Amino acid sequence: MNNKKTLKVRFLGGVGEIGKNMTALEYGKDIIIIDAGLTFPNADMPGIDLLIPDISYLVQNKDKIRGIVLTHGHEDHIGGLPYVLKEINVPVYGTKLTLMLLEHKLIEQKVAGYSLNCVKPSGVVKLGCFSVEFVHVNHSIPGSCALSITTPVGIVYHSGDFKVDLTPINGEMIDIPRISEIGKKGVTLLLCESTNVEQEGYTMSEHVVGETLDRLFADNARRRLIVATFATNVHRLQQIINLAEKHKRKIAFSGRSMLNVVDAATKVGEIDIPENLVVDIEKIKNYADKDLVIVSTGSQGEPMSALTRMAAGDYNQVQVGSNDTIIISASPIPGNERSIYQVINNLYRKGAEVVYKSITKIHVSGHACQEELKILHTLLKPKFFIPVHGEYRHLKKHCRLAKEIGMKESNMLIADIGDTVEVTPRSIRKGEKIQSGTRYIDGLSIDDSENVVRDRKHLAEDGLMVAVCCVSEDTGEIVQGPDIINKGSILSDAQIAEAKNIIIKTINSFDVKSVGDMSEIRNTIRKNLRNFIIKKTKKSPMIIPVVTEV
Amino acid sequence: MNNKKTLKVRFLGGVGEIGKNMTALEYGKDIIIIDAGLTFPNADMPGIDLLIPDISYLVQNKDKIRGIVLTHGHEDHIGGLPYVLKEINVPVYGTKLTLMLLEHKLIEQKVAGYSLNCVKPSGVVKLGCFSVEFVHVNHSIPGSCALSITTPVGIVYHSGDFKVDLTPINGEMIDIPRISEIGKKGVTLLLCESTNVEQEGYTMSEHVVGETLDRLFADNARRRLIVATFATNVHRLQQIINLAEKHKRKIAFSGRSMLNVVDAATKVGEIDIPENLVVDIEKIKNYADKDLVIVSTGSQGEPMSALTRMAAGDYNQVQVGSNDTIIISASPIPGNERSIYQVINNLYRKGAEVVYKSITKIHVSGHACQEELKILHTLLKPKFFIPVHGEYRHLKKHCRLAKEIGMKESNMLIADIGDTVEVTPRSIRKGEKIQSGTRYIDGLSIDDSENVVRDRKHLAEDGLMVAVCCVSEDTGEIVQGPDIINKGSILSDAQIAEAKNIIIKTINSFDVKSVGDMSEIRNTIRKNLRNFIIKKTKKSPMIIPVVTEV
Repeated sequence: MNNKKTLKVRFLGGVGEIGKNMTALEYGKDIIIIDAGLTFPNADMPGIDLLIPDISYLVQNKDKIRGIVLTHGHEDHIGGLPYVLKEINVPVYGTKLTLMLLEHKLIEQKVAGYSLNCVKPSGVVKLGCFSVEFVHVNHSIPGSCALSITTPVGIVYHSGDFKVDLTPINGEMIDIPRISEIGKKGVTLLLCESTNVEQEGYTMSEHVVGETLDRLFADNARRRLIVATFATNVHRLQQIINLAEKHKRKIAFSGRSMLNVVDAATKVGEIDIPENLVVDIEKIKNYADKDLVIVSTGSQGEPMSALTRMAAGDYNQVQVGSNDTIIISASPIPGNERSIYQVINNLYRKGAEVVYKSITKIHVSGHACQEELKILHTLLKPKFFIPVHGEYRHLKKHCRLAKEIGMKESNMLIADIGDTVEVTPRSIRKGEKIQSGTRYIDGLSIDDSENVVRDRKHLAEDGLMVAVCCVSEDTGEIVQGPDIINKGSILSDAQIAEAKNIIIKTINSFDVKSVGDMSEIRNTIRKNLRNFIIKKTKKSPMIIPVVTEV
Repeated sequence: MNNKKTLKVRFLGGVGEIGKNMTALEYGKDIIIIDAGLTFPNADMPGIDLLIPDISYLVQNKDKIRGIVLTHGHEDHIGGLPYVLKEINVPVYGTKLTLMLLEHKLIEQKVAGYSLNCVKPSGVVKLGCFSVEFVHVNHSIPGSCALSITTPVGIVYHSGDFKVDLTPINGEMIDIPRISEIGKKGVTLLLCESTNVEQEGYTMSEHVVGETLDRLFADNARRRLIVATFATNVHRLQQIINLAEKHKRKIAFSGRSMLNVVDAATKVGEIDIPENLVVDIEKIKNYADKDLVIVSTGSQGEPMSALTRMAAGDYNQVQVGSNDTIIISASPIPGNERSIYQVINNLYRKGAEVVYKSITKIHVSGHACQEELKILHTLLKPKFFIPVHGEYRHLKKHCRLAKEIGMKESNMLIADIGDTVEVTPRSIRKGEKIQSGTRYIDGLSIDDSENVVRDRKHLAEDGLMVAVCCVSEDTGEIVQGPDIINKGSILSDAQIAEAKNIIIKTINSFDVKSVGDMSEIRNTIRKNLRNFIIKKTKKSPMIIPVVTEV
C-alpha cells in the first residue's frame, strides 16, 4: 500500500468506549480532529475528577493539524478542549450552541487566544485536503451534526451522536434528504455511533416526554413540582418551559450547569422563554407550591448536584417536603444506579412523591436504536464501516447488524483506542499503534502515570502503616521509637506491640554503623512487617518505614 | 400500653435494605431471631469484605434468646451466622439445604458447638412463647419457607423471600392452601418482602428459563457452552443438568461456590444428577467442544470468580475462544453493571459469542411482583402490615400497594434499622431505638467503628503525605530532614521543595526546647501544609507529620 495515498483514521482517548472522545483523520500533511471530549472516572479511580485523552501523538504532529471539528456540545465531545487547546492551538469549528458552551469552559479555565468558528448546519469548512460538511441530526442537545468529510480517498461520514426524531421540539428532523444525496455520491467509510445498538426498533420522539410531563403537571395541580433532568437537554427544558406557561406556573432553575446551559441556549436562540416566567431560585418562597416548577440538575445522583443536596436536606433554597412531587426525567447511566436510588430513598423519607423510570415515557434516549441505524447504513451504502462510540460488545453487535443488511465482513473492522485504520478507496486495514489513552485530572493537576491511582487503590483497600524509628549514627542504637502510625488499617494493641518488636529486631540484625544507605534496612522492615500483618489479618497495608540516622 | 403484653419486633442489621438481614421478635422473657445474613459492601467501603449485623442488643439479652429460625439459605439470610453463633450460641432451625449450606460455612470458619435442627416444610418449632410454622414457598433456592409465628398477640406471618411459581422445577408450588388457612385463623401482623414491588404483573416461572436454554443448546449444537448463573439457584442447575443429558453433553462445574452448592444439594437430595454426566473441570480437554457444557460462577462479574478469570484469560482450566457460546443466566444486581459488562467485553474480544439479558427469558427473578404480593395480602388479610426487605422506596411503594387493596394507612408503618415496633392485638406503633447497624469484616478483623473506612476513603480520594523531621532535644534545631513521602498525591518538585520550607519555618517558629509535647508542633505543621496544598492543588491529602526529638 502506498502510504502517501492512504487516509489514516486514528482513535485517541476514551475509557471503556471506543471512538467516542476523540478521533483524528490524517492524510499526507493534513490532520483534522473530530471532537475532544472527556470521560468521567469510574469507582476504580478514587479521587480522580476527569479523564482527558492523551494527545501526545497530536502534539508531536502539531504542524499538520488544520482544525478541530465538533459534532455537538456534550461533555464527552467538547470537555477535553480546555486542556487540548492549551497544547494545540488550532481553529475550532462547530454550531453555535456547541461553541457557546465551549467558550464558557474556556473562560472558566482561563484558556486564551482560541479561535472558535461558527458553522451552520449544511455549512462546509475546508481544512487542508479535507472538506467537512456539517449535516443536521437529531440528538438530546440542539446543534448536533454528523460530519460528511470529503477526503482524497472519498467521503468519510461520521454519524456523530444521533437519532431519527420525526417530531422534534425545535427545528427540523435529521437531514435525511442530504444524507440520501451523500449516499448517492458514494461513501468510502462510515463511522457510526453504537450506543443503542442492543435496542430493537426505534427510539421514541422527544415529543412523548412532553405528553407524559403534561399529564404529571395536571395530576399534581396542587403540589410543587421539581423536575430533574440533564442540563444540556435543551429541548426537554423547552418542553418544561412550555408546560409551565400552559399550567400557569413560574419556573425556577437550580444547579450551576443548569443555569449555564439556559444562559448559553438563550443567547444563541436555541431556547425560548416567555417574559416574566422565570423566577430566581432565591425568590421561590414568594410563590405558592402550586404556582411553581423547579428544574434541577442531579438526575444521576451526582454528589454535589442540586437534587442530591435537596434530598440530603442540604440545599438552602429548596426544602423538600410532603407537598413536593419530584420527577426524574432521565435514565440512570450504568454505574450511577446506587447513587440515584439513594437520592430517591432520601426524597421519599422527606415525605415527597417521586416519579422515576418505573413510569415509562418520562425519558427518551438521544441515540439511534437498531432500525434507525439501519436507515443510516441503507441510505449511505458505505464501502467500509467502523462502528464507534460504544463498548466492545456494542461494536460487535453493530458489525452484526451491518452484516445483516448486506455489508461484507471483510469491509468492516473494530478499532481499539490507539489504533490507526488505513483506508484507500479499495482497502481497509489496521495500521500502526500510536501513543494514546487517558490522562487523569485530579484537582488542579494532570497526571500521566497510573502510579497515583494505583497507590490510592492500595491505600483504600488495605490502609496504611507508618513505622518510625531514629537510630544513632555513632552507636547504631535505637534512640527514639519505634512508633507506629496506623490509618485505615485494623490492628489490635497486641499486634502493634508485636510489630514494634519486629522493627527493633530487624534494626538490631543490621550493623547500622557500617550500612551506608538506610534503604536496605527500610526494605527489610517493610518485608518483615508485611509478612507479619498478612499472617495476622489477611490484609496488606501500604507500609512506609521511616528510619532516620541522627 | 402495658409493655408486658406487647410484642416487640426489632429490626437489626442491613445496609440500604430494611428488614432483610436480621429481625428479632421479643415478648416478655422470650426472643426469637429470624435470619442472620450479611451484606456485601458497596464502592463506598473500600477494602471491606463483608458487613454483618451489629448484635449488641442481642448479646445483652442473650438469656432470652430461644433460637434462630432461617427462611432460606442465601448469604443475605444466613451469611452472618458464623459471626453471630460465636457470640450467641443458640439452636438454629431451618430446612435441610439451608442447614447444609450453613454447616459448610461454620466448618470453614471453625465455629464449634453449634446446634442445627432440621425442620421440614409444614413443620412447627416451639420456642418459648412462640410457635413457628415453616410454610413452603417458591424462591430461587430450594427449601425456602415463610414463617407463620403464633405469638401471644396473634399470628405474625413473615413472608421470607418468595414468588408464586405454578410450574416449579422440583417439588411443589407455594403452599397456597396452608396460607389460606392461616389467613382464615386471622393474622395480626404481616411482614412481607418488597424486592419486586415496582414490577407489574407476575414473575415468570423458572420453567421458561429452561425453554430458552433448550433453544440455545439446540442453536449451538457444534459449539462449547458455558453457562454462568448464581451457584445457589439449584433449580436452574437442575435444568441445565437435564438439558445436558437431553443434548448428550457432559457437564463440568467451575468455581468454588458452585462446587460447594452442588455438593450440598446432592447430599440433601435437592439436585438429581444422572451417573457419568459430570466430568471434572480438570478433564474437559478430553471432550470435544460440542460434547460439553460448563456451568460457572461469575454471573455478576465478581473479581475472583471463574467467569471473570476466563474472560481475562487467567483461568487455567478453561481457555475461552471463538467456538464458545457463553450464556449469562442472571440479571445484573444494581451496582454490578460495569463489572459484568467488562466481563462481556472481554469475552467478545476473545472471539466468543455471549448471550445476556438483551435476550429475554434467560433469567427470571425469585421475588414476587405486584400481583403475587396482592395474592399474599389478600389471602392473609392481616390486621397490621410492615413492608420489609427493600430500600425505602420499595417499602413506600409496598405500603401504597397494600392501601390499594384495602389496608388502612394507620395499620401499617415503615420501620428503619434499629427500630422497635410494638404490636398488640389492637395496636401498632414505633417503640424504642436499639443499638443496631453493621460491623465491617476486613480480612480476619471485625471493625466496629467507621474510622477505618473514613480514613481509607480520605486516602483514596486525596492520597497521603508523610512529613518527617528530627529536631535536637538540646538545641531545638533540625538535625535531620525535613523529608516528604508522597503517595497517591500529585505534587511537582517545586511544590515539594516549598512544602519542606513550610515545615522548616513552622518548626523554627517554636521554641522547641521549651515545648514539652510535640503534638502542638505536629498540628501546626499539618495545618500549614494543608493550607498550602489545597491552595496549590485543590486536593487535601492526609498529612502525617512525624517530628522526632533526639
